[in-house]
Amino acid sequence: MREHEYLQSLHFNCIRLPDGAGVVNMSLPIVLAIGDREKEEIGASPDVALHGPDGGVLAILRRVEIYPHNKEERIARTWGTTAPGLPYVDEAIAQAGNWLIGGDLEVIEPIKYNDGLDHYRLSPQQLRNEFDKRGADAVFAFQLRNPVHNGHALLMNDTRRRLLEMGFKNPILLLHPLGGFTKADDVPLPVRMEQHSKVLEDGVLDPETTIVSIFPSPMHYAGPTEVQWHAKARINAGANFYIVGRDPAGMGHPTEKRDLYNPDHGKKVLSMAPGLEKLNILPFKVAAYDTVAKKMAFFDPSRSKDFLFISGTKMRAFAKSGENPPDGFMCPGGWKVLVDYYNSLQTEEAAVATV
Amino acid sequence: MREHEYLQSLHFNCIRLPDGAGVVNMSLPIVLAIGDREKEEIGASPDVALHGPDGGVLAILRRVEIYPHNKEERIARTWGTTAPGLPYVDEAIAQAGNWLIGGDLEVIEPIKYNDGLDHYRLSPQQLRNEFDKRGADAVFAFQLRNPVHNGHALLMNDTRRRLLEMGFKNPILLLHPLGGFTKADDVPLPVRMEQHSKVLEDGVLDPETTIVSIFPSPMHYAGPTEVQWHAKARINAGANFYIVGRDPAGMGHPTEKRDLYNPDHGKKVLSMAPGLEKLNILPFKVAAYDTVAKKMAFFDPSRSKDFLFISGTKMRAFAKSGENPPDGFMCPGGWKVLVDYYNSLQTEEAAVATV
Repeated sequence: MREHEYLQSLHFNCIRLPDGAGVVNMSLPIVLAIGDREKEEIGASPDVALHGPDGGVLAILRRVEIYPHNKEERIARTWGTTAPGLPYVDEAIAQAGNWLIGGDLEVIEPIKYNDGLDHYRLSPQQLRNEFDKRGADAVFAFQLRNPVHNGHALLMNDTRRRLLEMGFKNPILLLHPLGGFTKADDVPLPVRMEQHSKVLEDGVLDPETTIVSIFPSPMHYAGPTEVQWHAKARINAGANFYIVGRDPAGMGHPTEKRDLYNPDHGKKVLSMAPGLEKLNILPFKVAAYDTVAKKMAFFDPSRSKDFLFISGTKMRAFAKSGENPPDGFMCPGGWKVLVDYYNSLQTEEAAVATV
Repeated sequence: MREHEYLQSLHFNCIRLPDGAGVVNMSLPIVLAIGDREKEEIGASPDVALHGPDGGVLAILRRVEIYPHNKEERIARTWGTTAPGLPYVDEAIAQAGNWLIGGDLEVIEPIKYNDGLDHYRLSPQQLRNEFDKRGADAVFAFQLRNPVHNGHALLMNDTRRRLLEMGFKNPILLLHPLGGFTKADDVPLPVRMEQHSKVLEDGVLDPETTIVSIFPSPMHYAGPTEVQWHAKARINAGANFYIVGRDPAGMGHPTEKRDLYNPDHGKKVLSMAPGLEKLNILPFKVAAYDTVAKKMAFFDPSRSKDFLFISGTKMRAFAKSGENPPDGFMCPGGWKVLVDYYNSLQTEEAAVATV
């Protein structure tokens, strides 16, 4: 991003289009930080080549502009806090250079990760083509960074049912797991992708009406600011309905015993965000384990004592201990992927402890 | 403000109008904080009376809504820092209640300060009427919280000249000193108002084409976020040109040895702010003391050694020591007001030291 875009993103969460054509939502700045040494090397060169990890040139940044990386202000305006311990700040901002470089980006070839998952990394245009090929008349997107349990599946299948009721003939689900940086205790992408495959194999989600693709963004855990980016990116890729839950992209406050964001703010802010006026927001109904019906069901407050909430933490505890969660919490194939993953972790930890 | 307005102000610096009628700029939330006790007292009452310091009811807040006052997030998103020592945070937020109350405001009577300056406190409508009465075809606003020196006057008179050149027949200056909270080392409002009077009496500014009024807002020192409010409020009052300088509403970082904001960001952010698309921004040319011409003049970099920059700090040092600034820095009547003020301070300090 150039500085005028960066400033609009930080201050307004949107960027004005030329010629009075309105605004596009852009709540997270997409910037490249460089250090003093790189800045000096670039000097007055107008164009800069961007290399991949293997040295090949991936893109050229034309007519570059270099401007100060005001980290404290960027963090405060993006996260609404500067408390130490924000995962993405620690990962990507704190140690980054003191300058940002922007320009006109000329991409030479699509980025490959060579991790066996590149076929899942569809560009927005590829996704749009895929929706067309399937004859979708509605696309509803589900952002996730966790394994899919039957509560999620219930929600997605119920959303499809509601869209059919609304008159759509062929609603397609975009199951769009986040593929970039996540915090250490989140399940890694390859494990999640394997788990998602099992969920489709086991028929919990219908492969005929579901497209699984990786959303390559890093997770910022920036709550109401980030949820706009999550929604906007999916609209760009052809989605017209976006499912949003309680405290989207939220986390605990890094230094205080409370949620970092008011859990209702994400949905409220998203519903008022500039550039997202035409977004159809689908509220995320709360699902929990119904101990009477022995399956995941929408929470019914009139018989709340019958419901068991299985948090991510509790799920991880089950998988780590090898204990099975209640029947009907997750399809067996998907659950096995998680158990194997946590077993492998424990084996590794044991090996480290022995050494 | 209600919460949906508060959230839009914090996240987007603007508020969406009903029925797709665009947005209005609103970069600083205007909120009323209450504590747990007040919240409990209000209970389920739909309407709340707002009392002045003398106990009289000034306004009624109808159909109230009470929502959490997320101070850290408010501060981070407004100032781009949470460092201790932000003057307005210390003054008005840190000790404020943990709740905000909003509703439909029904004002019973205009607020009076009874400080002998109320005749300067014109409402936006009163200002518009005044501009009409004077037959203004252009109104240019100058925000200030400091005494007017001849450099300011040069700038304002030069702006009028440029507007006349642009074809306007009767440009009127709105000299609009900020009347709310300012930090301790700023000159207090009554002294500034007296100084401004002298500047008009001495003919440095032309009383025929100048309206002096008090802008009752508190100073936030929130840089690029606040300058939008400063401009928007003057547009509301009928101004169509706004003079903006280097680092508007900026200050030093409270805990680091640097400016809190990039000095160019204020003007850049203002020029891109949503809801201010039609604002005419007049760049603030830098004036300094020309030691050859012995007067304030626009800085000429080709003979920079002839110019003397007299900062606010230096001006205060002169006034405190009783030393005269260079001839032509400020009109003698205005300067005397400042000298008298600093003398009175020193007398007070001496009295305190003696006691």
